[in-house]
Amino acid sequence: MRKPKIVIVGAGYGGLMTTVRLQKLIGVNEADIVLINKNDYHYETTWLHEASAGTLHHDRVRYDISDVIDKSKVDFIQDTVVEIKKEDKKVVLENGEVDYDYLVIALGGEPETFGIKGLKEYAFGITNVNSSRQLREHIEYQFATYNMEEEKDDTRLAIVVGGAGFTGIEFLGELTNRIPELCREYDVDSSKVKIICVEAAPTVLPGFDPELVNYAVSQLERKGVEFLIGTAIKEATPEGIIVAKGEEEPREIKANTVVWAAGVRGNSIIEKSGFEAMRGRVKVQPDLRVPGFDDVFIIGDSSLVINEEINRPYPPTAQIAMQQGEVVARNLAALIRNKSELETFTFDNKGTVCSLGHDDAIGVVFGKKITGSKASFMKKVVDNRSLYMIGGAGLVLKKGKFNVF
Amino acid sequence: MRKPKIVIVGAGYGGLMTTVRLQKLIGVNEADIVLINKNDYHYETTWLHEASAGTLHHDRVRYDISDVIDKSKVDFIQDTVVEIKKEDKKVVLENGEVDYDYLVIALGGEPETFGIKGLKEYAFGITNVNSSRQLREHIEYQFATYNMEEEKDDTRLAIVVGGAGFTGIEFLGELTNRIPELCREYDVDSSKVKIICVEAAPTVLPGFDPELVNYAVSQLERKGVEFLIGTAIKEATPEGIIVAKGEEEPREIKANTVVWAAGVRGNSIIEKSGFEAMRGRVKVQPDLRVPGFDDVFIIGDSSLVINEEINRPYPPTAQIAMQQGEVVARNLAALIRNKSELETFTFDNKGTVCSLGHDDAIGVVFGKKITGSKASFMKKVVDNRSLYMIGGAGLVLKKGKFNVF
Repeated sequence: MRKPKIVIVGAGYGGLMTTVRLQKLIGVNEADIVLINKNDYHYETTWLHEASAGTLHHDRVRYDISDVIDKSKVDFIQDTVVEIKKEDKKVVLENGEVDYDYLVIALGGEPETFGIKGLKEYAFGITNVNSSRQLREHIEYQFATYNMEEEKDDTRLAIVVGGAGFTGIEFLGELTNRIPELCREYDVDSSKVKIICVEAAPTVLPGFDPELVNYAVSQLERKGVEFLIGTAIKEATPEGIIVAKGEEEPREIKANTVVWAAGVRGNSIIEKSGFEAMRGRVKVQPDLRVPGFDDVFIIGDSSLVINEEINRPYPPTAQIAMQQGEVVARNLAALIRNKSELETFTFDNKGTVCSLGHDDAIGVVFGKKITGSKASFMKKVVDNRSLYMIGGAGLVLKKGKFNVF
Repeated sequence: MRKPKIVIVGAGYGGLMTTVRLQKLIGVNEADIVLINKNDYHYETTWLHEASAGTLHHDRVRYDISDVIDKSKVDFIQDTVVEIKKEDKKVVLENGEVDYDYLVIALGGEPETFGIKGLKEYAFGITNVNSSRQLREHIEYQFATYNMEEEKDDTRLAIVVGGAGFTGIEFLGELTNRIPELCREYDVDSSKVKIICVEAAPTVLPGFDPELVNYAVSQLERKGVEFLIGTAIKEATPEGIIVAKGEEEPREIKANTVVWAAGVRGNSIIEKSGFEAMRGRVKVQPDLRVPGFDDVFIIGDSSLVINEEINRPYPPTAQIAMQQGEVVARNLAALIRNKSELETFTFDNKGTVCSLGHDDAIGVVFGKKITGSKASFMKKVVDNRSLYMIGGAGLVLKKGKFNVF
C-alpha cells in the first residue's frame, strides 16, 4: 500500500509547528512528510521590528529549519511556491512540481497597501529578514551620509512610520532606542532627527485597552515620536509622503525613510490558485480545512477564523498560527489513520504584549494589565515560548532572549 | 611686551605634530599657541582604507584632539578655514577671524580628480571619517538590497576602485577580507561579487619594487580582484564607469560602487589665498617657510619638497608630514627667541609598508624587502608609531593595533 503524502508549504509559525508536531505524532511508515519553504531558515516574524531598527542582529531572529525537523521523517525542499493546482493535487514550484494527498497551506501574509500610490515603490517593509536588514541599512546610510553634504539635509534624518498597529508601535519602540546610538555613531545632533507615526484610524493600537494605549503613546512621545492620528497617507513619493486629516488640505511630509507597517493580507498564492478568499484569507471550516477541499488545510495569516464573541475575525498572530498548527498536526494524524472525526479549532487567547523597546512594554496577560519592566519581561517570556514550542529548550538556549533585568 | 601668537591650521599628522612638539619646547609666557581644526578629533588618514572597507570601526581611526594637547599652553578652536589673508596676517574662519604672528598651514590634501567627468558626483572617496563610513554603509546597503529584488542585479555587487596606488591597493586588501563577511551577513553567493581595479599608469604601485608589486598583485588576484592596468577612467556615471585602454574603443563597466583613490592634491585654500602653487602644493624653502612670507610655514600635503636624488617631489605621506612638524616646532621656538638661524628640513625615509589586509603586506624597511606576516607586523608597528609620536604610550594603548600573530 502506498503511503499517503503530506505536503506543508511555508515554514513560518504555523507550518513549522505543524511539521514538528506531526513528526512526533506519526511513524516513519505511516506517511511521507514534505516541508517546502523559500528559505532554508525560519524567522520570527514578531521579532522583525528589532532587526529592522538594528537593535537585534537578523541572525538572532532566524534559525535553520534543519535544526528542528527530524530528517528521518521529513523531506525538506527549498523552493518557492508558484501556484497550487488543487484539482490536480499538485504544488507548482519555481523549480518543479510536488503532488500531495494532504496539503497544509501556511504561506504567511503579505503587506496590504490598500492601493495607496507609491507605497510599493518607495516604502520599506518589516516583512521578512531581507526587508528588515535592508531597512536597517537604509537608515544607517542616511545617517552616514548626513555629514557628507555641504547643505545639511534634515529629511535624511526624518523617518515616517505608516501605521500605529502592533508592528508600527513595536518598531517605534526599538527605533527610539536605536536613534541615540546612530547619532553617536555618525556625529549627528539628535535634535535634528524626526520620527513621525501616521495612523488613519482614530486611535493608536485599535482594540487595545485605552489606558495601556495612553501609556504607550506618552512613553513614545517622551522619546521623540510625533503621532498624527486620524490621518491618512494619500501617497508615497521619492521625497516622502502626502497626508490628509479628515477634510483638511493634503500636505507633504518630507522624509527619506518611509516604513509601511499598517496592514497584512493573506498570501497572493491563495487567490492565484482559485480559492475563495477575502484579501487573501480563506474562511476555513472548524477543522481548519477549506470548504469543498477535504485534503487542504489553511492556517496562519491566510486563514480566517471568526471570534464568536464579537463576530469578527481574529487578527492574524503568531499565537493563533501555532495553535492552529497543533490542531492540524492531530487532524492529519487522524486522517491518515482513517478516523473520520476531526478536532475543532478554538483559539485560546493567552494574552498580548506589545513591546516599546527592550526595556518597556504594555500588555494584557491572563486578563491582567501590565506595563513597564514587568510587561517587558513577559514579552521575553512570550518570545522564548514560541522558540520552545517549536524547537524545545535547546532552541531557547541558542536563540532566546535573556537580557532581562 | 606682547607675546607672539602662533596659529596652526589643521590637526592632521603635520599640524598636530607641530602642536605637541611646540607645547613641550616653549613656556607658557613665551607665546600664545592656537590650533584650529574643522573637527574636534584627529583621524589617521593612513587607516581610512580600513574604516572604508568596514574592517575597522571609524572610532578606532580617530581620537579627540583634547587628549593630546596641553590646554594650559594651547587654545583649540573648532572651525573651518575659509581663507588666509597673508598680507593682513589673518585667518578667516566660517565663524570669525584669527590674527597671527606666525602661521603653520597644515590643512591636508584633497582628492585630485584630474577633471574626469562625473567623479565628483558619483564616486566615493577614502578621504576622511565622514566619507569612509559613508562608503562602508553604501557597500553594505548594496549587499542588503541584493536579495530584495525579484531580478537580481549583480551590478549591486560590483565595486570599481579607481587607482592602484597606495590607497587603492590598501583598500583592496581590506575589501577582499570584508567581502566574505558581507556575503555571509546578507546570504549572497560570493561568486557574484566583482572587484575591479582600474589604473591608468602602466603598473600597480608605481615606484615600488617590481618583485613586491608582483607579490601584491598575485595575492589580490587570488582573492578575486581583477586588474585593468594601463586603462584610464574616462567618465563616471550613475551606472558605473567608462574606461579605455590605449587606442581601444571606450567601454562601460557597470558597478553600483565606484571608489576614487587615485590622487591627492594640495588644499584648495592655498590657491584661494593667493599662494603660488602647483596643484595646491607650495614649493617651500629648506626651512619649510613660504618664499616671500617669513611668518608662514606650510607642511604636509600642501607642501612640496624635492627629493634631490631623483630631482622629483617626495610623495605626500604621513611620515614626511610628521617629520616636517618636528622641524617647524623647533624653527618656531627659534623664531620667538629671536634666533635667526633656522633648521633645514631633510626627509629621513624610514621605509614604506603597504598593507594587503590585516594579515598580509609588502614593504621596504631599513632597505630590506619584506612580505606576508612579517610585513603585516611591521605595518602595525608603523601605525602604532604615529600614535606614539603624537600622543605617547597612553595613546598607543588606547588606539593601537595589537592584533598581531
